[in-house]
Amino acid sequence: MRITDMNWFQVESYLQTDDRCIVPLGSTEQHAYLSLSVDSLLAERVALEAAEPLGVPVFPVLHYGVAPYFRTFPGTITLRVETYIQIIRDILNSLRDTGFKRIVLVNGHGGNRPAGALAQEWAMQQQGVRVKFYNWWNAPQTWARMQQIHPLGTHASWMENFPWTRLANVVMPTDAKPALDLGLLDVLNAAEQRVFLGDGNFGGPYQMPDEDMLAMWAVAVKETRALLTSGWGEA
Amino acid sequence: MRITDMNWFQVESYLQTDDRCIVPLGSTEQHAYLSLSVDSLLAERVALEAAEPLGVPVFPVLHYGVAPYFRTFPGTITLRVETYIQIIRDILNSLRDTGFKRIVLVNGHGGNRPAGALAQEWAMQQQGVRVKFYNWWNAPQTWARMQQIHPLGTHASWMENFPWTRLANVVMPTDAKPALDLGLLDVLNAAEQRVFLGDGNFGGPYQMPDEDMLAMWAVAVKETRALLTSGWGEA
Amino acid sequence: MRITDMNWFQVESYLQTDDRCIVPLGSTEQHAYLSLSVDSLLAERVALEAAEPLGVPVFPVLHYGVAPYFRTFPGTITLRVETYIQIIRDILNSLRDTGFKRIVLVNGHGGNRPAGALAQEWAMQQQGVRVKFYNWWNAPQTWARMQQIHPLGTHASWMENFPWTRLANVVMPTDAKPALDLGLLDVLNAAEQRVFLGDGNFGGPYQMPDEDMLAMWAVAVKETRALLTSGWGEA
Amino acid sequence: MRITDMNWFQVESYLQTDDRCIVPLGSTEQHAYLSLSVDSLLAERVALEAAEPLGVPVFPVLHYGVAPYFRTFPGTITLRVETYIQIIRDILNSLRDTGFKRIVLVNGHGGNRPAGALAQEWAMQQQGVRVKFYNWWNAPQTWARMQQIHPLGTHASWMENFPWTRLANVVMPTDAKPALDLGLLDVLNAAEQRVFLGDGNFGGPYQMPDEDMLAMWAVAVKETRALLTSGWGEA
Amino acid sequence: MRITDMNWFQVESYLQTDDRCIVPLGSTEQHAYLSLSVDSLLAERVALEAAEPLGVPVFPVLHYGVAPYFRTFPGTITLRVETYIQIIRDILNSLRDTGFKRIVLVNGHGGNRPAGALAQEWAMQQQGVRVKFYNWWNAPQTWARMQQIHPLGTHASWMENFPWTRLANVVMPTDAKPALDLGLLDVLNAAEQRVFLGDGNFGGPYQMPDEDMLAMWAVAVKETRALLTSGWGEA
Amino acid sequence: MRITDMNWFQVESYLQTDDRCIVPLGSTEQHAYLSLSVDSLLAERVALEAAEPLGVPVFPVLHYGVAPYFRTFPGTITLRVETYIQIIRDILNSLRDTGFKRIVLVNGHGGNRPAGALAQEWAMQQQGVRVKFYNWWNAPQTWARMQQIHPLGTHASWMENFPWTRLANVVMPTDAKPALDLGLLDVLNAAEQRVFLGDGNFGGPYQMPDEDMLAMWAVAVKETRALLTSGWGEA
Repeated sequence: MRITDMNWFQVESYLQTDDRCIVPLGSTEQHAYLSLSVDSLLAERVALEAAEPLGVPVFPVLHYGVAPYFRTFPGTITLRVETYIQIIRDILNSLRDTGFKRIVLVNGHGGNRPAGALAQEWAMQQQGVRVKFYNWWNAPQTWARMQQIHPLGTHASWMENFPWTRLANVVMPTDAKPALDLGLLDVLNAAEQRVFLGDGNFGGPYQMPDEDMLAMWAVAVKETRALLTSGWGEA
Repeated sequence: MRITDMNWFQVESYLQTDDRCIVPLGSTEQHAYLSLSVDSLLAERVALEAAEPLGVPVFPVLHYGVAPYFRTFPGTITLRVETYIQIIRDILNSLRDTGFKRIVLVNGHGGNRPAGALAQEWAMQQQGVRVKFYNWWNAPQTWARMQQIHPLGTHASWMENFPWTRLANVVMPTDAKPALDLGLLDVLNAAEQRVFLGDGNFGGPYQMPDEDMLAMWAVAVKETRALLTSGWGEA
Repeated sequence: MRITDMNWFQVESYLQTDDRCIVPLGSTEQHAYLSLSVDSLLAERVALEAAEPLGVPVFPVLHYGVAPYFRTFPGTITLRVETYIQIIRDILNSLRDTGFKRIVLVNGHGGNRPAGALAQEWAMQQQGVRVKFYNWWNAPQTWARMQQIHPLGTHASWMENFPWTRLANVVMPTDAKPALDLGLLDVLNAAEQRVFLGDGNFGGPYQMPDEDMLAMWAVAVKETRALLTSGWGEA
Repeated sequence: MRITDMNWFQVESYLQTDDRCIVPLGSTEQHAYLSLSVDSLLAERVALEAAEPLGVPVFPVLHYGVAPYFRTFPGTITLRVETYIQIIRDILNSLRDTGFKRIVLVNGHGGNRPAGALAQEWAMQQQGVRVKFYNWWNAPQTWARMQQIHPLGTHASWMENFPWTRLANVVMPTDAKPALDLGLLDVLNAAEQRVFLGDGNFGGPYQMPDEDMLAMWAVAVKETRALLTSGWGEA
Repeated sequence: MRITDMNWFQVESYLQTDDRCIVPLGSTEQHAYLSLSVDSLLAERVALEAAEPLGVPVFPVLHYGVAPYFRTFPGTITLRVETYIQIIRDILNSLRDTGFKRIVLVNGHGGNRPAGALAQEWAMQQQGVRVKFYNWWNAPQTWARMQQIHPLGTHASWMENFPWTRLANVVMPTDAKPALDLGLLDVLNAAEQRVFLGDGNFGGPYQMPDEDMLAMWAVAVKETRALLTSGWGEA
Repeated sequence: MRITDMNWFQVESYLQTDDRCIVPLGSTEQHAYLSLSVDSLLAERVALEAAEPLGVPVFPVLHYGVAPYFRTFPGTITLRVETYIQIIRDILNSLRDTGFKRIVLVNGHGGNRPAGALAQEWAMQQQGVRVKFYNWWNAPQTWARMQQIHPLGTHASWMENFPWTRLANVVMPTDAKPALDLGLLDVLNAAEQRVFLGDGNFGGPYQMPDEDMLAMWAVAVKETRALLTSGWGEA
């Protein structure tokens, strides 16, 4: 359930019988031919579908993340690491202070990983409040399922191409892009990245059959849901 | 146009003939009987409607803002002032670095005002890049139009009650709430606010006729649009 | 009473029967033909006069504030917003830790408003300690009284021209300056501000009769004093 | 000359023939029987007297400094080290940006020493701008002159007791206080300091003859003045 | 070559013909029966051995890292994420400013990963300066070689047990510890970690034959060396 | 005893009968003909020798400090003051949280003094935990002993030239360097320092007889040891 579709009385009522919630972490950054919001769309959607049967509320997606290597691609926004960890800390404190005790940060973008380090740091000082940081796309079952579709799934390739991340009137290339040497992603500067990354896809085909994608998505939803239902420790 | 409905090639193409954009600033916080996302919904919507005929892209709303006085109301998230100004700075830097030169921050929440101070600080050091910080609801014409509907329009009252901020199956109170002494909003602590604010409405009726609201909205959209089309100085 | 005219034994003694204090917030920035310390002088003086009959101690004025738009005018000092809010937090913590429980920040400069946001954030986490942030010049009665003198009162105009803010041997212009378009104050960069602002007055006459000014000042003192005596909530 | 007694035109005019200025750094903290503003009063006064014959402008004293060991003494304000260094950086940047090239920070409080570290860090990255951080009371000649008056001169003892730091109607003890073991000043916590420091004097007599004090003051003024006139390196 | 065994003239001389260097990143944290400095020892040693035949200088290891989950184990030091990224930024800036252009951060501790995010952020704004962040133990070849020794190699298990990380007179357990559920490492708080982690080994045998370890180490040295000799992009 | 030679069980055991520890603070910076690690080597060694007969554990030296004035000398690393104080705070918090109650920071580099200010700030808020910040080289007895060797002992002169800070195959100048005007050390910028400082010695002979040095070292060790055994206040 979306927090956006609730008022505070309803959240208060929910907290009388449950204490879980999800915060999706997205990014606004180049995804080649796909929407600039791919990471936000996927993180929020997987969170919503995972939470729906459980009645767990989903907070609005944080649309901005850490993507310095894309900063020369128009439309990309990147937050500094130190800004990002402060946001995550404030969000966690707020959630705890109004009564949530089991919090899942569902992340849609690799560059946001420092949120996981912060969550860990934060968790150490809590009493009876738990937090999980989770990259939905490389959880074991989801990743294994993706490998079955095609061995080369990367940023802005088919792996992120869903009916809900494609744009109207944009035709995808039909060939596959050779894999980039991702070692260079860390080494090149912002201007060089623009040349190196070309259209922004890190390698692989641009699109795979929707039925494969939807099957993989179902795995991701299920695996994300399992995070909500178990693995919270005995507090 | 939503950035979410664009890819980076399209933004690049846009930047060849225009250099404006909007970033809506919202908040996830108690709004009495209305959605916890009222401020985000209104800021993003007024931005989209204002920008639409001009073709100016609208970035995804920043769903989290500064709302410490509501931190005891379930579902509220509040960022510290220092976190918030860092986010705004990073967003402005990113926009500038990929080519935007006239940026409007459309704000939907009073607590976010430090973003305006930061924008001003930032603006001083730019060359040929402009930024405006703008509270849509108290711009002169919009505010005047509201006063015509009812003299007491406040946080979470009728003033924020639109078809798109009301929740399904939530019945609004039919009486009006007496005005709160807003001086106390700054003075009381978080726990005391919860008692003081009651349902969270700061005073006034909970709902007014939709036709009045839509008429006022049209003024707000038009006034916001004017921000995009003039007042940028001669650089 | 000035803290400067007290030693710690005297403050300790005061705290046995009262728990209020004032901290004036000033700025060192261009004020056209007037003293660079106008904001400090006025904030400190209104605080002292308001506090005097009540015996409430007044801390030394913070001479430095947030004035980025004046940074190209010689003699102006501007602190970054993030620096400023840290100062305010530290001052509030110190005051609380030695026993003050009702603190008024009397502000003399619009650019310092983020101190108000910080004070609000800080207040939420206190137990039995209150803080008010207050712009002396636009409090309702003071502002109304100013409007009676002249409808156009702005930064560095007659509105800030008192016997104690004028400089010896400086002759004031006798004409009135047309109102500036203050929308541009946020939009222009530092170098452009210098041209745009001209002598630094934002518009209006440079001087009004002292008897009008002193009458208005009396209103401001009285209104500031009322802040000390009421509106502290029932803790 | 006080910046408070100047307007920006006058500072601009000054900068056409000179580029020096002084910023006094004070503190609001316990000084036993003396004014809580001793450090501010002395730093500002020595700066003004030193600068006067040279016509160098003196900025308003920064009334707040770093004094954590006094935080349990009523009336003391202490800034965190990290806050303080940010203030100093912002002040230095502002001074440089409006044209000052030789800046003296005249410090009146030992706890403010991190300002010196920051000034040094800042200085390394300047082109043709110099800054000196200077403790007026332990400069070689001043300190030597003090030793001639009495070998034990410490915080809040006679060493800081001048006609302009004494309070009306406060009688000073006539005996001398034994020297405190200052090693403990770093070791004890805030509550323990209150017991350990007693009245707040660190040791020595409370008052010496004014003629001795004024003679020592003359040395301090002269030594401070020398800082302005030489030792700036060949840029 | 160790920087500790060089003076600045020698570094200056080196920089005339090469521009590479290494900074090892360690940690001081519980490693069960092994030295609290295991991560520092291994990162520094692999760096030294990799660099030796190339003549590349190795800076002193940074002994402190990010290890919040071990903070209840005596002898552990943990830096906050935000502190850590500031250190890394300052080190990178210093290296660049005295002439290094290809910098390898050899990391010995998983918790230090935010240094990689910071390095990436930093790299984007450089001109002709490169940085690589590298976890020596999970580089592909090293990790593959470890898997050949035993499938379960974890923190404080045999995987970190070398002749140079073992302690004199400490007898290692001879049985293997069952694998811990590492999902809980993020979820439990500091006090709970102490119980959960037991002796601190995350699972697996405590010791394997030294000949296996030395063979694996040779792979790690070679793989680390390759980082220095290739993969720097065409600047 | 080195923490590096201990595991956490051993530290836990130690903490049952004692609560003292030492953290040496070093720097990696130019020392003329001597090792770039002089300050680290000396701080760590004096700590180890002082602690040895007492059985007090010595944490690994922090190899990086605050040395902005040397930033143009190859091989120098400098941390910003604000970074440095955050490291010190984190280290102190970690030590306290695992049970140390009497902590000595043995400093080997003058530029690190802000650590002392931070330690003082930190100490004020502790309960039963003490910290001392200590510059080993200018403690009274050590300094007096140095003066007996030669009146001019400075950075990178004979005063830091020990058998364990000299480099193999580096021949020291045999003449003495005239004393530099250290006032300029604060005033010049980084590029100018390089010219001003020449080889980096601040003045005096480059080497004195080892027997003198060892005798002085014995004083330093003894004086440092005394810090551990007394002066902790009555908590």
